[in-house]
Amino acid sequence: MLIGGSTRRRSAAEAVEPRVAVSSRVRLARNLRGFRFPEWADEGERRRVRETVTRAVLATGLMRDPLVADVAGLGDVTAQMLCESRVISQDLLERGAGAGLVVSADRRIAVMINEEDHLRIQVMEPGSDLQRAWAAADELDTRIEAHLAYAFSPQLGYLTACPSNVGTGLRASVMLHLLGLRLTNDLDAVLRALDRLRYAVRGVDGEGSDAAGHLFQISNQGTLGQDEAAVLDDLSRVAGEVARQERNARLRLARRSPLVLEDCVARAVVLLKNARVMSTEEALDYLSALRLGLELGLVRRLSVATLDELTLAVQPGHLQQSLGAACATEERDTARAGMLRKRLEGIALRA
Amino acid sequence: MLIGGSTRRRSAAEAVEPRVAVSSRVRLARNLRGFRFPEWADEGERRRVRETVTRAVLATGLMRDPLVADVAGLGDVTAQMLCESRVISQDLLERGAGAGLVVSADRRIAVMINEEDHLRIQVMEPGSDLQRAWAAADELDTRIEAHLAYAFSPQLGYLTACPSNVGTGLRASVMLHLLGLRLTNDLDAVLRALDRLRYAVRGVDGEGSDAAGHLFQISNQGTLGQDEAAVLDDLSRVAGEVARQERNARLRLARRSPLVLEDCVARAVVLLKNARVMSTEEALDYLSALRLGLELGLVRRLSVATLDELTLAVQPGHLQQSLGAACATEERDTARAGMLRKRLEGIALRA
Repeated sequence: MLIGGSTRRRSAAEAVEPRVAVSSRVRLARNLRGFRFPEWADEGERRRVRETVTRAVLATGLMRDPLVADVAGLGDVTAQMLCESRVISQDLLERGAGAGLVVSADRRIAVMINEEDHLRIQVMEPGSDLQRAWAAADELDTRIEAHLAYAFSPQLGYLTACPSNVGTGLRASVMLHLLGLRLTNDLDAVLRALDRLRYAVRGVDGEGSDAAGHLFQISNQGTLGQDEAAVLDDLSRVAGEVARQERNARLRLARRSPLVLEDCVARAVVLLKNARVMSTEEALDYLSALRLGLELGLVRRLSVATLDELTLAVQPGHLQQSLGAACATEERDTARAGMLRKRLEGIALRA
Repeated sequence: MLIGGSTRRRSAAEAVEPRVAVSSRVRLARNLRGFRFPEWADEGERRRVRETVTRAVLATGLMRDPLVADVAGLGDVTAQMLCESRVISQDLLERGAGAGLVVSADRRIAVMINEEDHLRIQVMEPGSDLQRAWAAADELDTRIEAHLAYAFSPQLGYLTACPSNVGTGLRASVMLHLLGLRLTNDLDAVLRALDRLRYAVRGVDGEGSDAAGHLFQISNQGTLGQDEAAVLDDLSRVAGEVARQERNARLRLARRSPLVLEDCVARAVVLLKNARVMSTEEALDYLSALRLGLELGLVRRLSVATLDELTLAVQPGHLQQSLGAACATEERDTARAGMLRKRLEGIALRA
C-alpha cells in the first residue's frame, strides 16, 4: 500500500521495526467559486473547471514531472493501477467527461478533478505521518489558491458538494496492518470500539474483519466545527492507540501462542513459494502474514521494500501491466502465483 | 481407511495404480432365536447374549489372536481408535452394559455384539473387493450358525431389530476417494445421482461434498427381496461406475487444468511439511491430495502404505495412543502437525 520506497533499516538479526501503520493520507475537498459542483455542471462547465484547475496545479511548481490526464484518455490498466495504489478513486473513473487528474511522478501527491468536488487534493506518506502529509497538502492548497478562487464561506468554511465535508474539507486516514489482533480474535472488538468513537473503518478490498491483507483504513468522519489540527491530533491519537493494541496482540501471541504465529507465517511462506494458482485476496493475506513474520524475525532474506512492492504487484492492474496485456482472471491467478514463486524464491523461515 | 497393509507395487517412475476404491465392507445383521433384541432386552439377557455369541465366534476358529472385550472395559483411546478404523461403530460404544466385540488381530474381521442387533458380522478388504469380503463374512456366519440358533423366518429371511435389515441382513459398502470429481466440480451431481438410485452416500467425518479427505462410502439401502449376489453385484457395478467417473475427472484435470491439479498437490505437500498446527479434517484433506498426487506421479518418495498409515495416525484416538496420553484438541493439533512434518520430511514434488 506504500507509494514511496521508504523502508526502515533492518537490524543485524534481520528483524525490522514493527510497522503497524502502513501509510497516512490527507485529502482536502475544494471547489471553485462561480462554477456548479461537478454533479450539477454540464460537460462544457466541467471541462472549463478541469482546464482551470490543471493550470493552477501545474503553476504551483510542486508537482515535478507529473502525470496530467483526462480520465477518458486513461487506459483501463493504468486506471486500475492508479486505483490499486489508492492514488485516485473508483468514483473518479466513473465520472466521465471532464474528470481528470494531476499526479506527481512518485504518486505521493495527487489532485483529482471533478470527482465529487472540483478538487480533491491528496497526499500520502508511508508510515504514521499525518503531519507531514498535512504539511504537503496544506502547502499545495495554499499555492493553488494563489491561482484561483475557492468557494468559501466565512461562517461555514470551504463549501463542498456533500455537507459532510463542509468546513475544513479535510479527511485524514491511517492504514493499519492488524493481523495480530485478528489472530488473537480481538479485531472485531477493536473495530466496534472505533465505530462507537465515530471513526470510519474500511478494509482494503473488503469490509469488516475479513479485509484482504488485514489492512484497515481508519478515517475521521465529518469536519464541521473542528479545525485541522484537532482532526489530525485526534486521528493520530486513535490510530496510535489501535497500533499499540496491535503490538500488544503480537507480543501476547509471541509469548503465549508462538506456534499459532509460526504456523501462520510458515504457511504463508510455503504457499507463496509453491502455489501454482493464487487469487489477489489470498496473495494479500499471505503477504500480510509475511510482513508480520518479517517484523517478528521469523522470515529471512526478505525486505520491507519487496513486500511493499509485491503488495501492489499482485493486484490485477499492476499484474496486467507487468504482463503487458489484459487477461482473464484464471490467467492472472496463474501469472500471479508464478511471479510470487519467482520473486520469493530466496526467502526462508528462520531456522 | 485401510485395515490391512496391502499396497500396490509402484512402477519405476514411482507412479502408482490409481486406486479410487479404498476399501470394501460387508456387514451381516443376525439375531439369536429366543432372546429379545438388545434395545428391548434387560441387562442380564444382554449379558447372556454376549457370552453365547462370544463363545460361538471363538469356536469357529476363524479369528486368530482376537481382541475380545466388553465395551465397558475398553479404554477411551482404544475405543476411539477402533471407531476411527471403522472396526466398530459409535453406536456400539453407546450401548452400555452387555455390548461387546470380538475383533481379529488384523482388524479385518469384527463381530459387534448387542449393537442394534445381537450380532453384526463385519469384514473389510482393501480396494474394491466386495466378493472377497462377502466370502469371508459368509463363511464366518455359517460357522457361527453351527453353534447357535439364528432368528429366521422362511418367509422373510433373517429377522432384525430394524425392518430395513430384514431379509439377508446384508449391508455392503465401498469407500471411494473422489477428489478428482471434487476438483472438476462434478461431485455434487454424482452424489445426487447415487441418491436417486437409492444408494446411501456418507462422507467420513462429514456429510455431502465436504467430507474430510474426500472419502465417501457408498452402500445399499434395504435388503428385503434381493439375494446377496444381486446386492453385491449391483453395488459393485455402481461403485465401479463412480470410480470410472473419478478416473475420467482426473484425466480431464491432468489434460485441461494441470495447474489446478499441481496447485492442489503442491499446497498439500508444503503444508504437511511445514504447518505447526493442524486439525484432523485439514490433515485428511491434504493426505487425500497427496494420494492423488502420488497416483498421478506428482509426488516422490512416498508410499501408499505410508499414506494409509497416516490417514489413521492423524485421527484423535490414534494420535493420543502414539502420544501415550489423552490430551486436549490444541495439544493434539500441534502434535499432529509435528508428527506429519517428521513423517513426511522426505517427500518432494516431482521436479
